[in-house]
Amino acid sequence: MATRPKVVIVGGGFGGLEAAKALRDAPVEVTLVDRRNHHVFQPLLYQVATAGLSPADIAEPLRRILRDQENVTVLLGEAERVDLAGKRLVLTDGEVPYDHLILACGASHSWFGHDEWAEHALGLKTLEDAREVRRRVLLAYERAERTEDAAERAALLTFVVIGGGPTGVEMAGAFAEIAHLTLARDFRRIDPHQARVHLIEAGPRLLPAFAEDLSAATKASLEKLKVTVHLNARVTAIAHDEVRFGDQTIAAKTILWAAGVQGAPIARTLGVELDRAGRVKVRPDFSLEGHPEVFVIGDMAALTDAKGVVVPGVCQGAMQAGKLVGKNLVRGLDGTAPEPFVYRDLGIMATIGRAHAVVQLPRFRFSGFFAWLFWAFLHVALLIGFDNRLVVMIEWMWAWFTFDRGARLITHERPHG
Amino acid sequence: MATRPKVVIVGGGFGGLEAAKALRDAPVEVTLVDRRNHHVFQPLLYQVATAGLSPADIAEPLRRILRDQENVTVLLGEAERVDLAGKRLVLTDGEVPYDHLILACGASHSWFGHDEWAEHALGLKTLEDAREVRRRVLLAYERAERTEDAAERAALLTFVVIGGGPTGVEMAGAFAEIAHLTLARDFRRIDPHQARVHLIEAGPRLLPAFAEDLSAATKASLEKLKVTVHLNARVTAIAHDEVRFGDQTIAAKTILWAAGVQGAPIARTLGVELDRAGRVKVRPDFSLEGHPEVFVIGDMAALTDAKGVVVPGVCQGAMQAGKLVGKNLVRGLDGTAPEPFVYRDLGIMATIGRAHAVVQLPRFRFSGFFAWLFWAFLHVALLIGFDNRLVVMIEWMWAWFTFDRGARLITHERPHG
Repeated sequence: MATRPKVVIVGGGFGGLEAAKALRDAPVEVTLVDRRNHHVFQPLLYQVATAGLSPADIAEPLRRILRDQENVTVLLGEAERVDLAGKRLVLTDGEVPYDHLILACGASHSWFGHDEWAEHALGLKTLEDAREVRRRVLLAYERAERTEDAAERAALLTFVVIGGGPTGVEMAGAFAEIAHLTLARDFRRIDPHQARVHLIEAGPRLLPAFAEDLSAATKASLEKLKVTVHLNARVTAIAHDEVRFGDQTIAAKTILWAAGVQGAPIARTLGVELDRAGRVKVRPDFSLEGHPEVFVIGDMAALTDAKGVVVPGVCQGAMQAGKLVGKNLVRGLDGTAPEPFVYRDLGIMATIGRAHAVVQLPRFRFSGFFAWLFWAFLHVALLIGFDNRLVVMIEWMWAWFTFDRGARLITHERPHG
Repeated sequence: MATRPKVVIVGGGFGGLEAAKALRDAPVEVTLVDRRNHHVFQPLLYQVATAGLSPADIAEPLRRILRDQENVTVLLGEAERVDLAGKRLVLTDGEVPYDHLILACGASHSWFGHDEWAEHALGLKTLEDAREVRRRVLLAYERAERTEDAAERAALLTFVVIGGGPTGVEMAGAFAEIAHLTLARDFRRIDPHQARVHLIEAGPRLLPAFAEDLSAATKASLEKLKVTVHLNARVTAIAHDEVRFGDQTIAAKTILWAAGVQGAPIARTLGVELDRAGRVKVRPDFSLEGHPEVFVIGDMAALTDAKGVVVPGVCQGAMQAGKLVGKNLVRGLDGTAPEPFVYRDLGIMATIGRAHAVVQLPRFRFSGFFAWLFWAFLHVALLIGFDNRLVVMIEWMWAWFTFDRGARLITHERPHG
């Protein structure tokens, strides 16, 4: 056993898990380190943030996922830095030596140099974030019901989403539905229909990664849900209860940030060149320049693949990278040369509310209700644990027919925070 | 409208909700004040604490429950005290005047004069409590997997439950199952079978409210699940990682308190006589001596009913009280005399693990697997929202056949706390 190479994987997201699975039959000892005990199905995080699903519906304990893979040990721990020379991963409370290291720590928010905005705007990367967004949105309605001050009430009932990518579009659609469908009859003093949802995008169109007609369809759908879409609108200030862009100022108590991400902070401890988004520039097999035993994959890595395609920061990119790195590691054990990466685009999609989505496959694209059905079934099918799949399907069907959202809980240490 | 009497209900638990519903067609204006936005189905709280169910599965927004009852306004707010002379309820951030007041604030933990124990032992009254217990239990296993210190590992894998009532019995059974079934194959360095669960009861038998043969059956079932049951064991000290009773000391990192409750603190602001458990001694119609416009029901009230039965602090007691108080209020509006309370015992039950329960009906009692089926179907059927019912049923069936627990999440602001 002592002679088996030690492979340490940091991060149990889509990339890290695929790497671990690709090493299933390899004569290596794998240690998967994560600061959470669970894998999160990120594409449905916005559903938790908007009270449609419970955190456990979209999360799965890492130990359970890897239970039957005998060569994997899961460790709950927070990686602090990499000691490349000493070949060890330093945790906040210990260290793990490695022969091969795979960094798959994902991304955190980028505030574009305005870190002070983090105080006023909510991000959406973890289950904790999602629960906090849910709490703040529901509390805003509760406070609006109680206040006597008309200006405060208006700010409480104004929801601003910054960033017109898939997360921003999905959140804006869900916020609008909460106001106009879910809560419509629940209050006595306020009318939830008075709520206003603004979606602010710096570029000329929503969903810039999609074809132009899908961007246009998305904007039209959101406007049908009474979302105000602002294009070419670069946010210049986020202060307490206020967002500024161009010559406009919107007073809002709930501000969601879905505009920018950057590679996880551990990338900075590698002492190598990072791109503008804080991602590590890797070699064509995701290894680190000068350190063929260290790989960086997923949202932490910047790579243009062997065919000249910039690998996008999406689940599929991370999964394909994890798989390749795992396979290459196995190849390396018997001296076979590593294969370079070629990204395979399986399509992208985003959903807008309860009956509309845009789907862009490599050779075909469509939008509308059937796109939404396609989106819904694919996402339920991809959920990792089978029990979750069934539960999520039922919760969605119920919510769809009743316009309800089952997870409308305000829970927190500070219920009145 | 201005002439309609104002009825203020504090607390959206079983008692408060029944009171509100009993006033459905009454010419009154009802305000329901709660510091949470949701009703919790308390009998299944232990399932959330032990990762079997998600918080949203057993909770329902108060607004949704009361959505169609036009004469009810729900307010999220924390009641601080009652001004009996001024006929107003004082909140931490405002006040609500009343003509009739129904206090249904439930109970909090009683530490029997040792408030310092609250630092070391976990209670289980709210969804937040349940999530904290879940987090602590799962973290204990994670830490045990990482520690090199044998004594620390043993303390991490020791779970002590204090109090042999239904909650204590249910928690001890679930803790044992987590160790021996759910997590059995999930760790590499520790063997979850090494975990020890202790149940400590001060009296001579478990479930003192039940018949003696059911107490004995409960003890036998728990022992079969490898729980160590200590009877006639009065806890004398709870310190950091340590519980003392008699001449024994158990080192344990997870200590659950299910031993005593006392009436909610607001009872003390009434300036009336309380019993030893901090409950308000009420008149036979739950009104306050000298204040026929104020009622106290549920776990906050101490009453021996018209037939000499001490009303127990269970859901049924609170629900029946809420219903009667609501009806009596309506009677009072046209001058009819109030009816005194007669408690109707519908039976009590407790469950021990995945296949055993004890059920005591007024004329019949049984235990074992069929008692468990009876318990499970009744509890699912009683869940307030229909969608929850279906989801809970599926989660249970899945968990039952796979020995799994779907909600094994460690989430918190302090993931390493």
